Amino acid sequence: MHIRYLNPVGTDVYDAEMADTLNRYKQPETTVEVVSLASDRPKHLEYHAYEALVVGDIVAQARAAARDCDAFVIGCFYDVGLRDAREVSGRAIVTAPCESACAIARSLGNTFSVLVGRRKWIPKMAENVCLYGHEHAMASMRPMELGVHDFQNDDVVYERMLSVGRACVEEDGAEVLMLGCTASFGFCDRLQEALGVPVLDAMLAPFKYAEFLGDTALRLGWTPSRKWGSEAPPESEIADWGLFAEASARETAKPETLVPAE
Amino acid sequence: MHIRYLNPVGTDVYDAEMADTLNRYKQPETTVEVVSLASDRPKHLEYHAYEALVVGDIVAQARAAARDCDAFVIGCFYDVGLRDAREVSGRAIVTAPCESACAIARSLGNTFSVLVGRRKWIPKMAENVCLYGHEHAMASMRPMELGVHDFQNDDVVYERMLSVGRACVEEDGAEVLMLGCTASFGFCDRLQEALGVPVLDAMLAPFKYAEFLGDTALRLGWTPSRKWGSEAPPESEIADWGLFAEASARETAKPETLVPAE
Amino acid sequence: MHIRYLNPVGTDVYDAEMADTLNRYKQPETTVEVVSLASDRPKHLEYHAYEALVVGDIVAQARAAARDCDAFVIGCFYDVGLRDAREVSGRAIVTAPCESACAIARSLGNTFSVLVGRRKWIPKMAENVCLYGHEHAMASMRPMELGVHDFQNDDVVYERMLSVGRACVEEDGAEVLMLGCTASFGFCDRLQEALGVPVLDAMLAPFKYAEFLGDTALRLGWTPSRKWGSEAPPESEIADWGLFAEASARETAKPETLVPAE
Amino acid sequence: MHIRYLNPVGTDVYDAEMADTLNRYKQPETTVEVVSLASDRPKHLEYHAYEALVVGDIVAQARAAARDCDAFVIGCFYDVGLRDAREVSGRAIVTAPCESACAIARSLGNTFSVLVGRRKWIPKMAENVCLYGHEHAMASMRPMELGVHDFQNDDVVYERMLSVGRACVEEDGAEVLMLGCTASFGFCDRLQEALGVPVLDAMLAPFKYAEFLGDTALRLGWTPSRKWGSEAPPESEIADWGLFAEASARETAKPETLVPAE
Amino acid sequence: MHIRYLNPVGTDVYDAEMADTLNRYKQPETTVEVVSLASDRPKHLEYHAYEALVVGDIVAQARAAARDCDAFVIGCFYDVGLRDAREVSGRAIVTAPCESACAIARSLGNTFSVLVGRRKWIPKMAENVCLYGHEHAMASMRPMELGVHDFQNDDVVYERMLSVGRACVEEDGAEVLMLGCTASFGFCDRLQEALGVPVLDAMLAPFKYAEFLGDTALRLGWTPSRKWGSEAPPESEIADWGLFAEASARETAKPETLVPAE
Amino acid sequence: MHIRYLNPVGTDVYDAEMADTLNRYKQPETTVEVVSLASDRPKHLEYHAYEALVVGDIVAQARAAARDCDAFVIGCFYDVGLRDAREVSGRAIVTAPCESACAIARSLGNTFSVLVGRRKWIPKMAENVCLYGHEHAMASMRPMELGVHDFQNDDVVYERMLSVGRACVEEDGAEVLMLGCTASFGFCDRLQEALGVPVLDAMLAPFKYAEFLGDTALRLGWTPSRKWGSEAPPESEIADWGLFAEASARETAKPETLVPAE
Repeated sequence: MHIRYLNPVGTDVYDAEMADTLNRYKQPETTVEVVSLASDRPKHLEYHAYEALVVGDIVAQARAAARDCDAFVIGCFYDVGLRDAREVSGRAIVTAPCESACAIARSLGNTFSVLVGRRKWIPKMAENVCLYGHEHAMASMRPMELGVHDFQNDDVVYERMLSVGRACVEEDGAEVLMLGCTASFGFCDRLQEALGVPVLDAMLAPFKYAEFLGDTALRLGWTPSRKWGSEAPPESEIADWGLFAEASARETAKPETLVPAE
Repeated sequence: MHIRYLNPVGTDVYDAEMADTLNRYKQPETTVEVVSLASDRPKHLEYHAYEALVVGDIVAQARAAARDCDAFVIGCFYDVGLRDAREVSGRAIVTAPCESACAIARSLGNTFSVLVGRRKWIPKMAENVCLYGHEHAMASMRPMELGVHDFQNDDVVYERMLSVGRACVEEDGAEVLMLGCTASFGFCDRLQEALGVPVLDAMLAPFKYAEFLGDTALRLGWTPSRKWGSEAPPESEIADWGLFAEASARETAKPETLVPAE
Repeated sequence: MHIRYLNPVGTDVYDAEMADTLNRYKQPETTVEVVSLASDRPKHLEYHAYEALVVGDIVAQARAAARDCDAFVIGCFYDVGLRDAREVSGRAIVTAPCESACAIARSLGNTFSVLVGRRKWIPKMAENVCLYGHEHAMASMRPMELGVHDFQNDDVVYERMLSVGRACVEEDGAEVLMLGCTASFGFCDRLQEALGVPVLDAMLAPFKYAEFLGDTALRLGWTPSRKWGSEAPPESEIADWGLFAEASARETAKPETLVPAE
Repeated sequence: MHIRYLNPVGTDVYDAEMADTLNRYKQPETTVEVVSLASDRPKHLEYHAYEALVVGDIVAQARAAARDCDAFVIGCFYDVGLRDAREVSGRAIVTAPCESACAIARSLGNTFSVLVGRRKWIPKMAENVCLYGHEHAMASMRPMELGVHDFQNDDVVYERMLSVGRACVEEDGAEVLMLGCTASFGFCDRLQEALGVPVLDAMLAPFKYAEFLGDTALRLGWTPSRKWGSEAPPESEIADWGLFAEASARETAKPETLVPAE
Repeated sequence: MHIRYLNPVGTDVYDAEMADTLNRYKQPETTVEVVSLASDRPKHLEYHAYEALVVGDIVAQARAAARDCDAFVIGCFYDVGLRDAREVSGRAIVTAPCESACAIARSLGNTFSVLVGRRKWIPKMAENVCLYGHEHAMASMRPMELGVHDFQNDDVVYERMLSVGRACVEEDGAEVLMLGCTASFGFCDRLQEALGVPVLDAMLAPFKYAEFLGDTALRLGWTPSRKWGSEAPPESEIADWGLFAEASARETAKPETLVPAE
Repeated sequence: MHIRYLNPVGTDVYDAEMADTLNRYKQPETTVEVVSLASDRPKHLEYHAYEALVVGDIVAQARAAARDCDAFVIGCFYDVGLRDAREVSGRAIVTAPCESACAIARSLGNTFSVLVGRRKWIPKMAENVCLYGHEHAMASMRPMELGVHDFQNDDVVYERMLSVGRACVEEDGAEVLMLGCTASFGFCDRLQEALGVPVLDAMLAPFKYAEFLGDTALRLGWTPSRKWGSEAPPESEIADWGLFAEASARETAKPETLVPAE
């Protein structure tokens, strides 16, 4: 199974490390590829206007994934363009962090909290949690209010995650935690050990969910519906109008294919 | 007050007629402009992948509106990019059809129904109605299932609207109707007379709502919040990354400014 | 367009000042009238039993408005008798503070908070916000717990509004504020400047909403539905039973008609 | 225990028969009184404007009940003025048909349907069911659409109830039925035998609920809360303003006190 | 009317005192019986796995109650097996603490809070409150976090109830309180006097509700529905499979029948 | 990874075929075991009273799975005892059909419908869908109303599934279907081909979900939370009271371990 993980920002500096991490946690047969967007795209997606500038790229990527992937991951906790991307992914699965992490959390505990970067993020993320149906299970969504410079210091970030995470558990009653940002990978192990509750990573949750749904798609034919609201646009119309024609200028990390281990 | 109405599709064939209609129903002091997108954009937005291709344009337009408009209307009943556009509209109001029509409908009756073109549209539109908080007031959302050729025949369209609208009222208990497509302007008068209930037009509802909120912005200072989730991206970052730099290739209808008539 | 604003209490001491304020913010063509109830009616409506004593008057006024007004405003944040009044308002629009302010707030930000006088008010007001569909957007409803004598001192009231409003924004995450009492007009400008978020006034919100809906009623025929739950009682029955017959003993402020300015 | 049942309409023609029915189903120690309103009041409450004309009377009655009753019943399925009446009932319980019937229905089955007279009634009644928290348990609310003359013919009414009730059970999945009109007493026995599900009467449900809550008030001190939203208006203010002063012109049925039977 | 109250734990040490309490608050004609489970059953039900071990017993008891009781009470605030027990109770009413207390609370005030023993209990109890439809009316659910030894000291328990209850009222806005544990009977009187709001007892609420519904079942035929989801299993199948065959090894308190006192 | 699938009924006649099916769709490294309950247990769980008789067994099995399994599946679409079983499963994952199928369906389409056997099942199953948060995504739950003898004829069952499934898609707007009964495995392939939408099997959905969550538990440490509501009962207490002591009399299918294929 081949999974493409899109880090939907205009920089490829994280691609290699992300691919590394995904390769560490994937199943033996899975092959992984991390891609990012052209360098004239926003470097982060904190603002909704920035999301708007990349959702076209995301959909173009999803359309490309229909040709050569089993699953495609949109690597932003806003789940940018999830509905749009699914529409054109053909038989390929499309996943995104918030939806996947919520689904997993519901099977591990009664309640969960989300650690987000800034309060800015909360309205849209809370709306997504609500749309996915998990409003009643969300104990809280707490901002870490980390400044730009703090993020360069892993210890500062970890300490903040730890203290905010502890507040979510002890004060808000969370039984599971999730990190509301794909940039925060690498902290889950330590946090989950320190806090004694599962801590879901925003990059690994949708990746593993993609691997799972890719597997059921292959073995059971449970591919995305193409009925009613999930109907894809007609290829003839896309061709007539010349949509999705321009070459995608993305930087692509080399696919890392591991030989099945075990 | 100056209002720009964006028909977010890659054709300007409707611009003049739309401007005409808006001018007919506006207040004396209001000036109106209708704009559409570059011709390489999708000609309609029935598919979510098409929305994804224009949401960047919509946000760019909203950003432009911040400089020279009091209010900006996103002319698609999917309310494409409403949150994103509002983020960068400065002091300009941003409205969209579904949100506006729902607000109006709630003040005119207990329940409303939405006439949509095809079933395809329902999941996203119903989700929007739900997000805006009007799920309990929505009696039904009924597709008219009109084929491409039917739309070229106004009488066929009207008859279908009439019969589906009657079903909404008589069978589903709707007290107010709304048309879930901006392309259907021009039918409301006849429908409302024939059916005996208010029929809200998808182009005029957000336009008049924009005029209203533009007025309260000017007189009372009730402009869009810029706090928390509504915080705009920093101009310096936008400049550094060169975002929104490319000249917008849109076709623009001439603004029609009427002298206050009365 | 002519709008009648009802201050539904048994005193006319506020009528002139209210009319003054409304005239300051209305559109040029609008004419405004402020009315209040007979002096044997309660002087405020903090208690629901007091509401019960005036809802008959409110409906009688709405019925009268059907004859000579384009819109009628019920000036109490409990939105007393809104459904009842709409039933008999003929083609005249009926608005009320909570419904109008919520609708406006939703277009200006993701979340809002309501500053109420006392905790007493919260259950019914929160229920209304919920009925109108805005429960998820309400960040909080905070009481100011102002004593009777505090209200005589504008500075004390302002300081309390400021500190409670700040708590709503900073602690509860509100992006927009609204004042949950029509008696608090005159503070919005200062509050909105001090707090940096829109602050909606409980008297002006329904007044401007009435002006807006009055305009769409006149230009587009979007008058109140008279179908199903909005069906009015038959005039013959009202006549047979002699309902609404007694002369309304209300004190009426002189209508202030401004010549369109601009 | 003494219970006063208010038939809140301007006619006493039903009082005796209602008292009769209540006496038939009450507990031995309970004494019952049926009262109605002055003859210049509406003869039925189908329209919300009519409700508005009697809610002041209802509250005045609730206030009177505080002095000499253990429980007070508002006999209209719109539950007119329930919150308002409870505020001034002192230690007396106040009940109303919709709230009581819903509570009972939830303990007898998973779902219920409500048989209402006309579609007119549905928006407000459905809103009440929703406010009381039973929206998910309501299988349907079906109008019987009985004309004025049909109601004079018991057999016609029964046949309609039977056929609409059967549709609720067989098509909508109702496990319990309730009659959404207090005028329909006397049909439950036959309906429940014919349909094989419990059929709750709109007059007896709140009466028996009042008897129950009156009992727990007496034995356990579970009287209405007077805290926060349930705080009563100060007697001094009521006296100062001369509220509730006029003699209530209601016609009162003779209280029928039965000696405890069994 | 005969009511059987099941304390669904493997000890009968509380039976006599419970019967005593129930007899003190019952109506004259009611007879009461308290039963508990075989001594190899869990001694408390704090853990859901313990509930699982007794739900079969509860259903067996409900089935037995169908033969010789008018009503059957499941004495655990988790409302363990309520749906299951109702299915086989024949014409006998089945009640449980959380459902009953919520129903009563809704008629006494706008909001209520629940005092629970430990945070452990909250997810399931909150889910039940939500399922019964009272989520919006619940001001809070607060744990008392009492240790094992504290419970042996009534004064300590009372002080904790008092302080947590006060926080519910003063901080969370509760107008009514309920105790979320049947083991806490005997504190309501003092609490309700000290706090000035109704305090519902977890043992008496479902008992009195059972008495009420038992009365309406007898007088009005409002017995549990047996339609759709409430359909009971066929006796023939139960017999064929030998279900419910083993003699119930429960310890049974002597029924205490009081002569109607008045 | 080792997964135990419990068919929670008192017969082992389906065990071998079920194991066969699971082995066909599992991943190479997974080993599978199917177990059922002692023969004195109910042969099906259509009635809630029957569920009550096996939930203790289910929890005992979950507790056993904590010792020797990575994941444990409760094979009944009522998701019997899911919360209870999770409490004592240690580090083993516990899944159940309805929860798993809903999660999968949400990633494949906007809406889903559930085909259930009889209307009897709907209230509890619909409540579960609601509790899991997917109420808004559920297009319908339709009973197939198949008689006992029909089930012996696969063609009859298939035809009924096809026609009811088609109604769900065409009339109710479902984009995904799920079979609400574990006994219906083996039909998905044909149905999904005939209907053109994904059809989720009630046995395979929770099995594959268990395999997925078992994998993330092993690789990422995302095991069930043991905090707050998920806290397990203390082993010392279980030992003191002798709970779960009796040897489980279940019939166990031989575990079928396949050598990793590919």
